Amino acid sequence: MAKTINKIAVLTSGGDAPGMNAAIRAVVRSCSYYNLDCIGVYGGFQGLIEADFETLTARSVRNIINKGGTFLQSSRSIDFKTKEGRKKAHKNLTDAGVDALIVVGGDGTFTGALHFYKEFDFPVVGIPATIDNDINGTDCTLGYDTALNTVVEAIDKIRDTASSHNRLFLIEVMGREAGDIALNSGIGAGAEEILLPEEKHGIQRMMDSLEKSKKSGKTSSIIVVAEGEKSGKNIFELAEFISESHKEYDIRVSVLGHIQRGGSPSCFDRVLASKLGVGAVEALTDGATNIMVGLCHQKVVHVPLKTALKSDRELDKELRRVADITSV
Amino acid sequence: MAKTINKIAVLTSGGDAPGMNAAIRAVVRSCSYYNLDCIGVYGGFQGLIEADFETLTARSVRNIINKGGTFLQSSRSIDFKTKEGRKKAHKNLTDAGVDALIVVGGDGTFTGALHFYKEFDFPVVGIPATIDNDINGTDCTLGYDTALNTVVEAIDKIRDTASSHNRLFLIEVMGREAGDIALNSGIGAGAEEILLPEEKHGIQRMMDSLEKSKKSGKTSSIIVVAEGEKSGKNIFELAEFISESHKEYDIRVSVLGHIQRGGSPSCFDRVLASKLGVGAVEALTDGATNIMVGLCHQKVVHVPLKTALKSDRELDKELRRVADITSV
Amino acid sequence: MAKTINKIAVLTSGGDAPGMNAAIRAVVRSCSYYNLDCIGVYGGFQGLIEADFETLTARSVRNIINKGGTFLQSSRSIDFKTKEGRKKAHKNLTDAGVDALIVVGGDGTFTGALHFYKEFDFPVVGIPATIDNDINGTDCTLGYDTALNTVVEAIDKIRDTASSHNRLFLIEVMGREAGDIALNSGIGAGAEEILLPEEKHGIQRMMDSLEKSKKSGKTSSIIVVAEGEKSGKNIFELAEFISESHKEYDIRVSVLGHIQRGGSPSCFDRVLASKLGVGAVEALTDGATNIMVGLCHQKVVHVPLKTALKSDRELDKELRRVADITSV
Amino acid sequence: MAKTINKIAVLTSGGDAPGMNAAIRAVVRSCSYYNLDCIGVYGGFQGLIEADFETLTARSVRNIINKGGTFLQSSRSIDFKTKEGRKKAHKNLTDAGVDALIVVGGDGTFTGALHFYKEFDFPVVGIPATIDNDINGTDCTLGYDTALNTVVEAIDKIRDTASSHNRLFLIEVMGREAGDIALNSGIGAGAEEILLPEEKHGIQRMMDSLEKSKKSGKTSSIIVVAEGEKSGKNIFELAEFISESHKEYDIRVSVLGHIQRGGSPSCFDRVLASKLGVGAVEALTDGATNIMVGLCHQKVVHVPLKTALKSDRELDKELRRVADITSV
Repeated sequence: MAKTINKIAVLTSGGDAPGMNAAIRAVVRSCSYYNLDCIGVYGGFQGLIEADFETLTARSVRNIINKGGTFLQSSRSIDFKTKEGRKKAHKNLTDAGVDALIVVGGDGTFTGALHFYKEFDFPVVGIPATIDNDINGTDCTLGYDTALNTVVEAIDKIRDTASSHNRLFLIEVMGREAGDIALNSGIGAGAEEILLPEEKHGIQRMMDSLEKSKKSGKTSSIIVVAEGEKSGKNIFELAEFISESHKEYDIRVSVLGHIQRGGSPSCFDRVLASKLGVGAVEALTDGATNIMVGLCHQKVVHVPLKTALKSDRELDKELRRVADITSV
Repeated sequence: MAKTINKIAVLTSGGDAPGMNAAIRAVVRSCSYYNLDCIGVYGGFQGLIEADFETLTARSVRNIINKGGTFLQSSRSIDFKTKEGRKKAHKNLTDAGVDALIVVGGDGTFTGALHFYKEFDFPVVGIPATIDNDINGTDCTLGYDTALNTVVEAIDKIRDTASSHNRLFLIEVMGREAGDIALNSGIGAGAEEILLPEEKHGIQRMMDSLEKSKKSGKTSSIIVVAEGEKSGKNIFELAEFISESHKEYDIRVSVLGHIQRGGSPSCFDRVLASKLGVGAVEALTDGATNIMVGLCHQKVVHVPLKTALKSDRELDKELRRVADITSV
Repeated sequence: MAKTINKIAVLTSGGDAPGMNAAIRAVVRSCSYYNLDCIGVYGGFQGLIEADFETLTARSVRNIINKGGTFLQSSRSIDFKTKEGRKKAHKNLTDAGVDALIVVGGDGTFTGALHFYKEFDFPVVGIPATIDNDINGTDCTLGYDTALNTVVEAIDKIRDTASSHNRLFLIEVMGREAGDIALNSGIGAGAEEILLPEEKHGIQRMMDSLEKSKKSGKTSSIIVVAEGEKSGKNIFELAEFISESHKEYDIRVSVLGHIQRGGSPSCFDRVLASKLGVGAVEALTDGATNIMVGLCHQKVVHVPLKTALKSDRELDKELRRVADITSV
Repeated sequence: MAKTINKIAVLTSGGDAPGMNAAIRAVVRSCSYYNLDCIGVYGGFQGLIEADFETLTARSVRNIINKGGTFLQSSRSIDFKTKEGRKKAHKNLTDAGVDALIVVGGDGTFTGALHFYKEFDFPVVGIPATIDNDINGTDCTLGYDTALNTVVEAIDKIRDTASSHNRLFLIEVMGREAGDIALNSGIGAGAEEILLPEEKHGIQRMMDSLEKSKKSGKTSSIIVVAEGEKSGKNIFELAEFISESHKEYDIRVSVLGHIQRGGSPSCFDRVLASKLGVGAVEALTDGATNIMVGLCHQKVVHVPLKTALKSDRELDKELRRVADITSV
């Protein structure tokens, strides 16, 4: 029989993502609604080890739903990767009377949570939050929708210059393993080409496409490049490579970088955070553990952490086709 | 056997919605991709009657993916409601060698398209575009996601004042029949209460909730009110009604109005427009007619226009519950 | 000889304006820089009466420079309008060892501060903060630049709909006494006409202009109306009035309302707040009192409160001319 | 006696800046107001040489006041640097019956215009437009205010991550010769340090400041670096340099790049563009030539092009002081 849950701890870990604060808020308010105690852990897994805890009430999380980042802060804890560290963390949690842990983060976070669950049979539930959208078993992760808007707004600005000067811009967006940001923002920003980590011959495609543009007399272009793109060239080398055979272009590079992680979450991400925060608390009170709460066709679903961590996500071929057709 | 499609006309009709331009662009580029001719109709159904047509090519739709409104313009045509008018429209289309029609709009638009299909057996496909999200058979309509972001950004601003002055704000958002905007933006903006067209006892709920807030000493509040809310009072009367029993509040009203329709579309709406635009052209070339292309779990689906127009959509009770819990 | 200043209190009062938090931050950090103590007063003048004080340090004001509203909150205090109330306020300040008071607000705030100074010879310095820009002796007030951006962004959205539907929009913006918001946002948003509180024959101008547009076949239009406009008609009556002689227009009204007060301050307002906050503290340490710190040609200047309150500001006739020429 | 002006040509040149479209619009509408003909030149000075002209009317410039970039496009013309090229340009202009030229751009543009004026005694007036704000004799240049807002919004987003992770961010902003963007956006974004082209010992200042922060236990920080900063290290080398003596920081670099040039202009820039556009046409009709129209204390002034090009602008020491005090 599942043990009764009276007190829940919540932490955020890994890279920050817009909507993390909204998720914490929903967890805290769900605890309040179900008369459970809730504590916040500062600094991610490292905060577990250092017992950096604070009691959170419905009031503690006022006016944070629209804030980027995470007020509980995050970190990449080396100590938590040791058995010693995790033991300390477990002791601190039990000493504080905590019955279950909700972790908000991406694959690194879930891996840590899975270890923790296995070693101590401690109830854990994950909330997927990463702008990269590279988690299995959920239609999308927290922060992804906001990041897409940030990226298209940035490219809209760059296009002002591209159009004014007949330039070719290579724009690097986040996504080491998953091309979701590049593919969607590329379509959304009307990019002429998109280089994805999931495709091997992207660079050849791109050269063909530039050749075609050249013939049609097109002189300004936006190419979106995922940082994990597989040509083996970094974006400056790519620019160099293109310029060798395309003297007609004035080529510029823009690396969007960290602005992609921040900003006030979109309405979608705020609502998603609210759904998943409520879902995470209810999962625990229903006796679930070792799972992630995800979104599947607008409903909250439970996904084993192990499944969530599986790296066999595939590129949405249908969407790739839409990109090809609309960039005609 | 379906007749071969060589030339497609596209129009936008009814209230404008962000993403309409992106949808036109995708239709035009899909035609280009499949070597079909494409003409744009200016001014909605009225433009059919007046033969206000223009040939559109891939170049015609450059740099419009990020623009609000619709460059083809819209109108509410009285003439098209007459048999006479529709006959004229049909003649104009056939005279121009058009084989099929794509209409971008909401329920009024689809009703017109359905009539037209029935009377002349003319191939028509609809793309759902309305910020109200009140179309059956699609997970969402074009413009809805953008409108949600516009609304939460507006309420974020109003909350600055509410918090600074201990005020109660009643904020009216769009939605005559459907509470989707109110419910989602209410959650996203952290509203204390939400009044929806789908609920009968909203006003009683709200008064209970205000009573509770009063006891807890809370003095600033945001209440989101859908314009189609069922109390029988307009929002100024509602404010009056509350002030009678809640002298402790300094109550203000804000009607968000037309800003909700405009603005650059979100990335989601741009991608959705691209999917549906491609889907609409491919539906026609595949012989489909009398359908709407909708989105179901990230895939493009075909929905009979008649089904799309059914008004039995229900409030998402699960989401209502999330609203209740997170506004604790 | 001016008394030595060791401890300064700061409060915000009247309608909130973007940049108030940035001004408080600059006051607090200037105190820190000059080794002065600083206390924040919650709830404006009422907070003086209730001794709602908190010691503020450089850390207390971290991460607030970009936040709208005022974390010290504001109010309209009736008690402070009584001699009794002001006496209480003075006693509380002296009991707390406060040597001088910085008030951030508009004309109501400065009037209160002036009384207070006169009655108790208590050092006061004002920082002008109001979106209306209706303070004498400063090139602009805090919050005004941000409000202008908010207004033009809102009108840009409404124009999407106006252009898509051939509509005439009447848009009401703030400004009871001063037409600065209406005139500048009207130019910035490309409005066809602008109704200002400073002009008597605005409505006749507007009718002439509409007549001209009618002849030229123009069918969509934006008219910006300051709330203090002098026709004696409210904006809905104005719409009615126009429609009587202009059946050709589909006329809509939009009241922008409270969104104009909120939002993250523009860079200009943040820098202005920083300049004025530093300037206010330095004014006090230099022995100045009974003055407002204002901006004149990019420099901080001292303006007697009495002068700041003078209501003889005039419409910028040159700018009115620019509006006329560019709306041709 | 000055020759009568009947036809004016307008072009944009050099790096694009938000507000260029609004300036073109104001020029065109002023011509219309004064019954002058107006032609637009595509592609800057190169367009003069290629006679790439188009007649512009009040209608041609509808709905562009809010668009970034320049619809007349820009270029860096090598041909115009030759006497041959300029001769061709002059012939094309006189062949087209053009009496005067308005150029919108920065110092390179004004240098070209000055040559052109001198060689052919052809009436020219400049409108200062560059985000760098590095033009003499005007309080500010077109696009500068918008760029500041773009930069602080980007840094606000990055701060979400900095605060969430206790990181030090080095953020590179534009400004090769002038530190105006860095200084103002640094104050506006609440940066802990700012490195400017005008200061020699910036790097030492920064190291002192980091040492102080280290002692005070501060662990997240934003440092704004102008691209023309004088340490001789690029921003990645700077990060390396800091990390050598500050192992306690997790240092990240962000180069904002081209997003700073684009985007919809702020209200201030739209109004400024309108003033200067009107001012430029009126300068020509009043017989002025060889001048730039600038803004001085909210009024339009005439500044000899030679003066505008003088490179003796100085850092605003008062503002530097405000930066130091508020970053305490």
